[in-house]
Amino acid sequence: MSLTNRDLVTIDDLSNEEMEALFCLADEMADSTDAQYGLCRGKIMATLFFEPSTRTRLSFEAAMLRLGGSVISTVDVGATSLAKGESIADMAKVVGSYADIIVIRHPWEGAAKVVADYAGIPVINAGDGGHEHPTQTLCDLYTIRKERQTLKGLRIALWGDLKHGRTIHSLIYALARLGASILFCPGSGLELPEHVMRRLNTEYRGELKKCGHLNHGPDRKLFPIDAMYITPTSHHQLAMLPDISLNVELQAGVDALYVTRLQKERQAPTTDPQERKKYPVVDKELLKGKEFEKTLVMHPLPRVDELAYEIDSDPRSKYFKQAAHGIPVRMALTAMLLGARVVSISSKYPSFAHKVEYPIYRRHSGVRCSNLNCVSNQETETKYIKPEFTIVSDEPLTLRCIYCQHELYPEYVASSDWHQGTLEHKKYHSARSRWTKKIRPENLIVFASEDEARAWQSGNGACTKE
Amino acid sequence: MSLTNRDLVTIDDLSNEEMEALFCLADEMADSTDAQYGLCRGKIMATLFFEPSTRTRLSFEAAMLRLGGSVISTVDVGATSLAKGESIADMAKVVGSYADIIVIRHPWEGAAKVVADYAGIPVINAGDGGHEHPTQTLCDLYTIRKERQTLKGLRIALWGDLKHGRTIHSLIYALARLGASILFCPGSGLELPEHVMRRLNTEYRGELKKCGHLNHGPDRKLFPIDAMYITPTSHHQLAMLPDISLNVELQAGVDALYVTRLQKERQAPTTDPQERKKYPVVDKELLKGKEFEKTLVMHPLPRVDELAYEIDSDPRSKYFKQAAHGIPVRMALTAMLLGARVVSISSKYPSFAHKVEYPIYRRHSGVRCSNLNCVSNQETETKYIKPEFTIVSDEPLTLRCIYCQHELYPEYVASSDWHQGTLEHKKYHSARSRWTKKIRPENLIVFASEDEARAWQSGNGACTKE
Amino acid sequence: MSLTNRDLVTIDDLSNEEMEALFCLADEMADSTDAQYGLCRGKIMATLFFEPSTRTRLSFEAAMLRLGGSVISTVDVGATSLAKGESIADMAKVVGSYADIIVIRHPWEGAAKVVADYAGIPVINAGDGGHEHPTQTLCDLYTIRKERQTLKGLRIALWGDLKHGRTIHSLIYALARLGASILFCPGSGLELPEHVMRRLNTEYRGELKKCGHLNHGPDRKLFPIDAMYITPTSHHQLAMLPDISLNVELQAGVDALYVTRLQKERQAPTTDPQERKKYPVVDKELLKGKEFEKTLVMHPLPRVDELAYEIDSDPRSKYFKQAAHGIPVRMALTAMLLGARVVSISSKYPSFAHKVEYPIYRRHSGVRCSNLNCVSNQETETKYIKPEFTIVSDEPLTLRCIYCQHELYPEYVASSDWHQGTLEHKKYHSARSRWTKKIRPENLIVFASEDEARAWQSGNGACTKE
Repeated sequence: MSLTNRDLVTIDDLSNEEMEALFCLADEMADSTDAQYGLCRGKIMATLFFEPSTRTRLSFEAAMLRLGGSVISTVDVGATSLAKGESIADMAKVVGSYADIIVIRHPWEGAAKVVADYAGIPVINAGDGGHEHPTQTLCDLYTIRKERQTLKGLRIALWGDLKHGRTIHSLIYALARLGASILFCPGSGLELPEHVMRRLNTEYRGELKKCGHLNHGPDRKLFPIDAMYITPTSHHQLAMLPDISLNVELQAGVDALYVTRLQKERQAPTTDPQERKKYPVVDKELLKGKEFEKTLVMHPLPRVDELAYEIDSDPRSKYFKQAAHGIPVRMALTAMLLGARVVSISSKYPSFAHKVEYPIYRRHSGVRCSNLNCVSNQETETKYIKPEFTIVSDEPLTLRCIYCQHELYPEYVASSDWHQGTLEHKKYHSARSRWTKKIRPENLIVFASEDEARAWQSGNGACTKE
Repeated sequence: MSLTNRDLVTIDDLSNEEMEALFCLADEMADSTDAQYGLCRGKIMATLFFEPSTRTRLSFEAAMLRLGGSVISTVDVGATSLAKGESIADMAKVVGSYADIIVIRHPWEGAAKVVADYAGIPVINAGDGGHEHPTQTLCDLYTIRKERQTLKGLRIALWGDLKHGRTIHSLIYALARLGASILFCPGSGLELPEHVMRRLNTEYRGELKKCGHLNHGPDRKLFPIDAMYITPTSHHQLAMLPDISLNVELQAGVDALYVTRLQKERQAPTTDPQERKKYPVVDKELLKGKEFEKTLVMHPLPRVDELAYEIDSDPRSKYFKQAAHGIPVRMALTAMLLGARVVSISSKYPSFAHKVEYPIYRRHSGVRCSNLNCVSNQETETKYIKPEFTIVSDEPLTLRCIYCQHELYPEYVASSDWHQGTLEHKKYHSARSRWTKKIRPENLIVFASEDEARAWQSGNGACTKE
Repeated sequence: MSLTNRDLVTIDDLSNEEMEALFCLADEMADSTDAQYGLCRGKIMATLFFEPSTRTRLSFEAAMLRLGGSVISTVDVGATSLAKGESIADMAKVVGSYADIIVIRHPWEGAAKVVADYAGIPVINAGDGGHEHPTQTLCDLYTIRKERQTLKGLRIALWGDLKHGRTIHSLIYALARLGASILFCPGSGLELPEHVMRRLNTEYRGELKKCGHLNHGPDRKLFPIDAMYITPTSHHQLAMLPDISLNVELQAGVDALYVTRLQKERQAPTTDPQERKKYPVVDKELLKGKEFEKTLVMHPLPRVDELAYEIDSDPRSKYFKQAAHGIPVRMALTAMLLGARVVSISSKYPSFAHKVEYPIYRRHSGVRCSNLNCVSNQETETKYIKPEFTIVSDEPLTLRCIYCQHELYPEYVASSDWHQGTLEHKKYHSARSRWTKKIRPENLIVFASEDEARAWQSGNGACTKE
């Protein structure tokens, strides 16, 4: 298996083995950066940034230039044809005929998938709204692996805003896949959303336990753990541990403390002005805790106030190294996708969670993704994008948008098969009824509202299958 | 004759032979893109974009990078010294001392000519307001030629907004020069302007016939031809054909259907909001017509609603290929202007219209170009630009601005010769009087108004010749 | 001594010898530009422009590309993480791990010094607010040297806005260091500020004489000299010359006339709208003066109205050459800082002013720089920057900010030594009292106000020394 001509839209596009191969190549790139010049000679990277970002764009461009390639770039949404009403599929096709690889950052969730679907050349997602930012996740994982050789069995604490920003959620799923245990240390009101917890339990098969009450002891107040996730391959199961054991466990130390800033730009505008002040700060005092003795302090940057300048010179602080790792990681990724370096992918690297294949739901009309920021809901894009979902659960019935991964819980369903041709038997049902489980996915019809279901039943609603 | 160190401001800067040589080189560039890397090694292209454009800028930059050259770029008018009141002549001189070739896009009509006049290095016009965009025209012509080997005798239908945007007008003149016949299929109220029709008849010597009534038959309603232009070298003349023959002619098929979008950004702000809805759409249904059986469907992109997504996969659709051709065409052009490739220009390629040399009108005061968007009317530029016109007709007296090609019809004239020194004989005349034809162009004085003419007659108006 | 890995934040970072070595290399670069391609192969320049500038950015980028290096760039403050509240120190560290050299332009005075302090790679200041723009100064000096072989003993007239814009002030100090005499010809109300005059007299040890009355003679009105500065190594001293001799001196001719535009963007918004009209213009008429017979006419560009287009073709006009010299000068500088060219620095080139080493004042609390635009006063930067000053005079007590060079005149002082541990002796003094001179710099405490001084005296104010 090779990465040549593939896309990186979500971190799930890479298997554990492929990530490990990429990290090995990144090590090589870091050790002999100058020797890589010329590897991508004559190749062009297009960096299409429809949202501000210095760091990410510059590091992609620097990575390509260090490989001897060149860059064309567009950085401002106002400075593009999109102002003329062009769809991103059209833009992808055209730029795909100019360049050899596209790096895209876009405010719409799912935009990178659309670009990858239409460009005809490898596409890297550099952030699509609040959805995914897989190369950030790769840099995060690479930083830990470089210092600790493996992710397996490590204790990684995630600190700050665990609610907004699916970037942190991607990191969580990746850590679970690679066998790490995760400690959740959210700011007040910034806890991990329900759907991430559920997904950790169902798809990643680990055990997630809330342990908020641990914070009440006077010795724990500096390190407010809200929940802990243990990957299934760990030696023991959290469920079997009494609370006291968790404390023992913690005293063995935290391997990495991953700090995030408050995602203001993704938040509702009604945010409490006091919220920023209450945001938990990582500083010298906190790091005096015994559990942080050998901890790697990490942060995706930019920081605001959540990481005190006083710890910059602390040898445990790895956030600037983490940023610097963006170059070898992105060099390795670019070289692999362009086929400039073909690396053998070992099949021995363990995977701690197996990808689940869900049935697909796709009809021309009916439900749409409920995420207003989803690419499938944008005026210019509905001309060619049809809503499409995976059916990830039937109790309650849950559809997951294939573009933005937002979940949808329809209230009413019907079957296209049962009543075929027999109008008097054409009936819709509550999605919570026993019928839902009986309908085969390929026959499922879901409705956005009861009105729509009624219209369909009376024969006026068009819910044809594609 | 060579293209080295020349400019491309208007498509008229290239002879038919030069275009053909450029297309041959573009074929070579397309066939072996990788082999061209290094051709422009060490050369710098400056892309100066004072108006938004992804496509055009990126394709110029990609073309230069594929030749092994490099690029410096400025993309936002706010991000430049122009905000400090600098003239474009000064900017051209300075950037001309930094780079080896300039690509300029600017909202002022005629701006590219000024840059070419002052830069001292080759300059390519990438769009100057509503004036010209010659490399777009080259890509259009190259796409047809690549599929049909020649332009001569082909039937090209132009569809949509034929009124706004002189880009389409440039294409029309180029098609006429290369011997194609043109079918005009405008949206309602978007017909070809009078001055373009007149120019086709006078300068290009072909026959343009209105044939709007053809559309009334039930079989023709999908393909509303408003007028047809036959180049003089065609086997027959339209004038000799009865209407029925035009139908027969059409049944032989349309070679290319060139679709344009409504040029909103060049329109008056009072535009009817319903107009966009009424804009004619090219879709599967239209293309079922027998006359479109082997038609190349083209579009300069970006499209809005005038080209249905459903025909994207139709083999007749060439618009994405047309965009992709931007790379080899711009590679060939850049290599030729920089002298990196010197191609022999055959003198055998036929020209179907000969360039007309008009007399020049240039005086320090008096008439100005009537186009407010003309570069010669901008505050920063009037410090060094004097209005200058070609006298393209004397009945009615018509001056054409050498910067933006807008036409001016002065009401009053006089002669600098007849009354020389004899105040009592100093008289002005109506431009429609018989005197106008008698004044030799080098002695002509035109007035912007009768007041100005009176002032001149009484000796107060200064209308000195440069 | 070598320039490898050094920064250029202010023109004072270069000795006279180093400037001369750089100019020699620039000569070489100009003579064989093509031969330099490849000198910086594989190296990356980051151009970080947080203020608009075509000219400066493009010339840096062109210089790097002509050396065979590559460029990553960010041009719009809105398009950066700074919008997320990031400090420039953090940005410097991160970009310092991507690129090999940074070119920074920033609206905050002193920003370039901060970037240089944190980036870990060579940093070039391309303009930090109204503070410094040392490569402009290098281009100015190089242009004169190229035409006249030396700066020593030349008469350089500075014309226009001598008040705003410390760029012109940097040029003044550099001219003084290199042994030129300076004629000041300001527009009305745009005279040289007091502090620049004082510094010329004290640090540069030359003689500055006001000679405004010279302008009243009818023969002098075209050339309104306000003051003249004679460097100490000139053969004679201005003070010894009667006014009539200055006239004689001037008749020997002006070697260069350096014209500046009105610095609107640095001015208070209450500027008189008539001011621009009154701004003195350099035109054909002025240059007819005998003293300008062999004068080099210079201008940093862009010009507005102060330099008439009619003199563009005059052989004395050197401003477009001056702009063109930006390429070889910046090529030479970049190659030297990157260590791609190591040039031996002669120690023989004379310096006409010796660098003064002032004592440092740095305390955690107390006075801040009075310049609101200083980097040390910005919200995001105060988290890690502590105010720091040089004590440049004790009568009156004058502190100069090490970031922006603005001067501060504190009213109250005390000593940390005299009263150590003895509360009853803890006293503050007026800065104008005899005590100020007696306090040793390392013991000096200055107060921002008498309130603060009182608070300190009563033991409540914290004025600890770092």
